[in-house]
Amino acid sequence: MRHGNILTSKQLSRADIEAVLDHAAAIESDGSAAVEDRSETVLGLLFFEPSTRTKMSFETAIKRLGGDVVDMGSVDASSVKKGESLADTVRVIEGYADGIVLRHPRQGAAKLASEYVDVPVINAGDGAGHHPTQTLLDLYTIRENAGLDDLTIGIMGDLKYGRTVHSLAYALSNFDTRQHFVSPESLQLPREVVFDLHQEGASVKEHESLDPILPELDVLYVTRIQRERFPDENEYQKVAGEYCITTETLEAASDELSVMHPLPRVDEIAPGVDTTDHATYFEQAHNGVPVRMALLDLLLGDSDE
Amino acid sequence: MRHGNILTSKQLSRADIEAVLDHAAAIESDGSAAVEDRSETVLGLLFFEPSTRTKMSFETAIKRLGGDVVDMGSVDASSVKKGESLADTVRVIEGYADGIVLRHPRQGAAKLASEYVDVPVINAGDGAGHHPTQTLLDLYTIRENAGLDDLTIGIMGDLKYGRTVHSLAYALSNFDTRQHFVSPESLQLPREVVFDLHQEGASVKEHESLDPILPELDVLYVTRIQRERFPDENEYQKVAGEYCITTETLEAASDELSVMHPLPRVDEIAPGVDTTDHATYFEQAHNGVPVRMALLDLLLGDSDE
Amino acid sequence: MRHGNILTSKQLSRADIEAVLDHAAAIESDGSAAVEDRSETVLGLLFFEPSTRTKMSFETAIKRLGGDVVDMGSVDASSVKKGESLADTVRVIEGYADGIVLRHPRQGAAKLASEYVDVPVINAGDGAGHHPTQTLLDLYTIRENAGLDDLTIGIMGDLKYGRTVHSLAYALSNFDTRQHFVSPESLQLPREVVFDLHQEGASVKEHESLDPILPELDVLYVTRIQRERFPDENEYQKVAGEYCITTETLEAASDELSVMHPLPRVDEIAPGVDTTDHATYFEQAHNGVPVRMALLDLLLGDSDE
Repeated sequence: MRHGNILTSKQLSRADIEAVLDHAAAIESDGSAAVEDRSETVLGLLFFEPSTRTKMSFETAIKRLGGDVVDMGSVDASSVKKGESLADTVRVIEGYADGIVLRHPRQGAAKLASEYVDVPVINAGDGAGHHPTQTLLDLYTIRENAGLDDLTIGIMGDLKYGRTVHSLAYALSNFDTRQHFVSPESLQLPREVVFDLHQEGASVKEHESLDPILPELDVLYVTRIQRERFPDENEYQKVAGEYCITTETLEAASDELSVMHPLPRVDEIAPGVDTTDHATYFEQAHNGVPVRMALLDLLLGDSDE
Repeated sequence: MRHGNILTSKQLSRADIEAVLDHAAAIESDGSAAVEDRSETVLGLLFFEPSTRTKMSFETAIKRLGGDVVDMGSVDASSVKKGESLADTVRVIEGYADGIVLRHPRQGAAKLASEYVDVPVINAGDGAGHHPTQTLLDLYTIRENAGLDDLTIGIMGDLKYGRTVHSLAYALSNFDTRQHFVSPESLQLPREVVFDLHQEGASVKEHESLDPILPELDVLYVTRIQRERFPDENEYQKVAGEYCITTETLEAASDELSVMHPLPRVDEIAPGVDTTDHATYFEQAHNGVPVRMALLDLLLGDSDE
Repeated sequence: MRHGNILTSKQLSRADIEAVLDHAAAIESDGSAAVEDRSETVLGLLFFEPSTRTKMSFETAIKRLGGDVVDMGSVDASSVKKGESLADTVRVIEGYADGIVLRHPRQGAAKLASEYVDVPVINAGDGAGHHPTQTLLDLYTIRENAGLDDLTIGIMGDLKYGRTVHSLAYALSNFDTRQHFVSPESLQLPREVVFDLHQEGASVKEHESLDPILPELDVLYVTRIQRERFPDENEYQKVAGEYCITTETLEAASDELSVMHPLPRVDEIAPGVDTTDHATYFEQAHNGVPVRMALLDLLLGDSDE
């Protein structure tokens, strides 16, 4: 993985995933487990779309490794507004930074960028495409709480548009997992994703209701249902109400169930759940730091070379 | 104060204030007076409202202590726009940062945030509420220039809406000070603030004109009168003209008078005053750095624990 | 130059330029050539206008020297919006930072700022005025690729409004260069610039077409022609097409020709040129880092004093 790029979740083999997760666990238990101090390292942040937690956790990660960032800032304040191509922008930034973290609204942007520069490119979300570092922190959280093998996971909410969900599903197909997808019919997984997962030999089932499968789940991964997906406010309200997790919902769950969410949440998980042992979503967000530290440390390699 | 929060000026006892001010003085005269190097420390900046000097001086302070920041950036570019609650935002950031500096338009926001996280929360202004670190740097500046006991201070301008003024007045009531408040009637101190100050045993007098009391003042603290408070432009012009400090105004003042202002100023102090010995407002702004260094150093405690 | 300001290109003598360029070359070949570690240094970034590469490369430069920045952020989020004068803003920031990098829409802003503060001020572009650090990195790139003496350079594109071009032309008049200016008549160099260059004894010729002089050029410096300069879209298209460099254009050039561009480019240089040996514009952008490191190191002087 050293000096490579992180572009898609599909690209990550089981061995790659385990290398990052093992290194993250080592770093979390002992900060000095990182390969070396990065005081000479400057990471370029190119966020063409808003982000809070992804950007802040990358920034925290490189700073906790001893390095620093240069941030392109918002697109409004950048040369992009003057019509510069992405290929030009990254070729310039390459002269400033030892690696590039890119979020972009266009699918395939990170791959394109990686073809123009010699420094590692990390995809921090490209439109409806991939968001592999979110997947890695999700996997890390699952492994810490329930283990990645012999896992029964429910994934619920907007399965149609959520890139987080697609990335996670692909990555989980590397492990011995039973994946249950729960959504209203209008927000089902795209057929090509289901097809791909079957091709990978994944165990996949789809449901419109959580009730029948909740008791057997080790992990319930909830995603936000966006109001703007619904032409009709009433229909949104009905769906949002039906796919909301409360302490009552969880009475039917195993005591060991971990409830995850990529955040931000709006109404999908009631605040009452926060104080139960099921709530794993803040821990999940925090895991972004050790996982991204591990990833950066592996990608950036030995700075002496 | 260690591992506590800084939420309101009312919370600060005389002993607290003196601890911060003494530590700031030690740091200002010798940078190595800080408890220890903060090279492992990352401070989270959450500014839900614009700020230049408060944010920059916090950032300078932690960097001069050897630490660094992660900045949420503008609200427009953040998950807040997707409807995330403040409680969720700070619980996520807690996983990235060793402390949180929060500015928020809603009064009580810092207190609410502090109830959800274990890291120290510093209120950097919450709506019409408090702005305790501004108060601390104001007190530091007064102490350096005139002393905090046996002090006669005039506070002039918009006393109705200015949180800076209310915070300062509460804090000064810990010391042996005579407070004179000067404003047009429409911008007087709120009655409840006057009541509270009397309850604290403070010596408080209100005036519509500066003239009668100017000669006896050790410090004159001027605040901005905002155009938008006046329905009528003519009335604003009249008031703004009357409460403007010029070199002529200051001919009646003591040679020792310090003129302070939280900045930014517009027309309240004529540029001619800048080159007189009275002008203390830039020094005041600069004091934000040692005072915030001292505060952070005390709040963050010993990083080895 | 130590503890001075960098305000205009005209201010730079041949000796100044060579001091910066020699130091940049030393730093580029050996990072430890900088005078000393800047771990105590905080540089204030005040960008009143958008910028990507200038701001990022200043930030990278100071960080690679071991220092850090405090950034005022966008004007929308700053006290400037409340009506603060530039003189006040820089006098406040002076208390936070060891030097100030200023971009401002008003010509002369950097000079004005420098009159109010004691820390070094670096002009990072002031309206139609100067942009001396761009000039220094341009000169560095020319020196590395073609040498600064006995140089034949073509400067093409929008010569009327481009401050980059004016700054470069003034600086080149310190050296033994033949300057050819190529533009449509409506975008010619302002007459006063031509006059000044003649006064300096520079060798200056103006052309409407590149063809006759291309074969003798060592360097071709291309700038962007802005659509908004033309009242008529058709006229813009005609001019843009005529002043576009392609691999076909370059068949008539010397093998040694370096093609430069301050970036961002839009259509002035066809992407096909990027992979030829002529393409020097990305190297040019990257040179912003060693040149600004050298400049900062020289300006900030010995931090022990």
